[in-house]
Amino acid sequence: MEMKQQLAADQALVEEALARYGDQWPTLGDLKEAMNYSLLSGGKRIRPVLTLAVCRLFGGDPEKALPFACGLEMIHTYSLIHDDLPCMDDDDLRRGRPTNHRVYGEATAVLAGDGLLTAAFGVLVQAELSPAQIVRGVACLSQAAGPAGMVGGQILDLAGEGKTLTYEEILRIQNLKTGCMIEAAARLGAIAADSTPQEEEAAAAYARKIGLAFQIRDDLLDVLGDEAELGKPIGSDRENEKSTFVGLQGIEGCERLIAELTEEAITALTAYPGREFLCQLARMLAGRTR
Amino acid sequence: MEMKQQLAADQALVEEALARYGDQWPTLGDLKEAMNYSLLSGGKRIRPVLTLAVCRLFGGDPEKALPFACGLEMIHTYSLIHDDLPCMDDDDLRRGRPTNHRVYGEATAVLAGDGLLTAAFGVLVQAELSPAQIVRGVACLSQAAGPAGMVGGQILDLAGEGKTLTYEEILRIQNLKTGCMIEAAARLGAIAADSTPQEEEAAAAYARKIGLAFQIRDDLLDVLGDEAELGKPIGSDRENEKSTFVGLQGIEGCERLIAELTEEAITALTAYPGREFLCQLARMLAGRTR
Repeated sequence: MEMKQQLAADQALVEEALARYGDQWPTLGDLKEAMNYSLLSGGKRIRPVLTLAVCRLFGGDPEKALPFACGLEMIHTYSLIHDDLPCMDDDDLRRGRPTNHRVYGEATAVLAGDGLLTAAFGVLVQAELSPAQIVRGVACLSQAAGPAGMVGGQILDLAGEGKTLTYEEILRIQNLKTGCMIEAAARLGAIAADSTPQEEEAAAAYARKIGLAFQIRDDLLDVLGDEAELGKPIGSDRENEKSTFVGLQGIEGCERLIAELTEEAITALTAYPGREFLCQLARMLAGRTR
Repeated sequence: MEMKQQLAADQALVEEALARYGDQWPTLGDLKEAMNYSLLSGGKRIRPVLTLAVCRLFGGDPEKALPFACGLEMIHTYSLIHDDLPCMDDDDLRRGRPTNHRVYGEATAVLAGDGLLTAAFGVLVQAELSPAQIVRGVACLSQAAGPAGMVGGQILDLAGEGKTLTYEEILRIQNLKTGCMIEAAARLGAIAADSTPQEEEAAAAYARKIGLAFQIRDDLLDVLGDEAELGKPIGSDRENEKSTFVGLQGIEGCERLIAELTEEAITALTAYPGREFLCQLARMLAGRTR
């Protein structure tokens, strides 16, 4: 299958599965509606697609990796809801639509996030994999999303606002805040395929590289992008006084970094014949315009 | 061992284990401090003690149930932090100390809650139990704490403020908001003991009864209690315009309900010779003054 067809097929698989899970929450107040407003708002689904692709690369059945992929996407979604809250980044727009708390109010937005985060682990355990694989998956996701990962990155990100950070400090924050979850997406695919530790590490290395390239591209788009296409306000990083890769490395430096990281990501998978989809995915993400 | 000695020993076991887990989070900003401020603030540890006691009742090793007990207590703790937020109940005092957001600010309090919730599942998987038991534990806790449990109860509780609710409506809210987690505490103990489904259901029935009695006592204490002893403002339910059991059943009606529920809880365990501790725990909770 062509890369773009495969990508569309995987995205559709994820979208359907998320809609199925979203349909399962009970109707209590507007909780279900608020959870699904953000969960089913048509993100790019990069993380779950990565889980499916890594599972396929190592000979696993991507369908069996779906609960892992969807659980991770639910955690990614909750983090966006909480990040947008007035006490955090105070954003009004996300993916071209009003943020969760702008529609449902702050209290419901906090709870919609809590609900997605809690339910994510309940989705993981539904995977038709061995209990040992599921336990590995839960451990991996909790580690990546928790205080030593995404939540830790968010606290450093908030603490860094208004300060001038070094390249190393930005790198550390972005690695925790964004990188850990992209790496976890790859690891979950490897776990679902019951891969060897070597295979899992190769996929993790690939993911770390594309994750960083992804984040640098994000910073560039915040400076150069088109507001309508991006679905969020341009220049919001500068407005929130955030130190960014662009500020430290310049536009050309960032483009060079992205190109290097993408090649390194591809190199990490040299040993695996089925890597073509992931190589093209890395290049596509590196050159994205939104 | 005497009941009170056993209780103190179990509480100490839980307290030490929580301190050990709390020591593990990395030091990123004030996240670790904020998480541990609430986690190690000396609650009664009713839920984790229940997990250990049920595990013991069914012949399991309570030490092996500790990660389950602590994971559940971490989720209970996160729920208190988020419930106290300005956009929720807007409380200034919890367990006799300023609430998390009053000390660390709203953003950090949200993240401390998110961190505890996420890390809880990482603690669960550390249990020295079979992968199948751990998967059952994760499923149980996610279900009880998620949109069909505690988070669902909280949204209904907020939606009910300022409205006159029927007894059945209050019962449903309390069951979701508080009952599900107390029931999960008992179930986790049964799962850690690798109990039969019958045993697990008996423990769950016991927990549902004491959970409801616990909540009715909470309402009574909110009306009658001593602020200093309770560690939170008296009359806060009335202030938040919450319908309560006391409002609907009166003080005497509530006392009668608590007594009935406690006897029903004890009856649920009739078949199990080692039930004495849990019987005394039920009576102690029913008569508590804070």
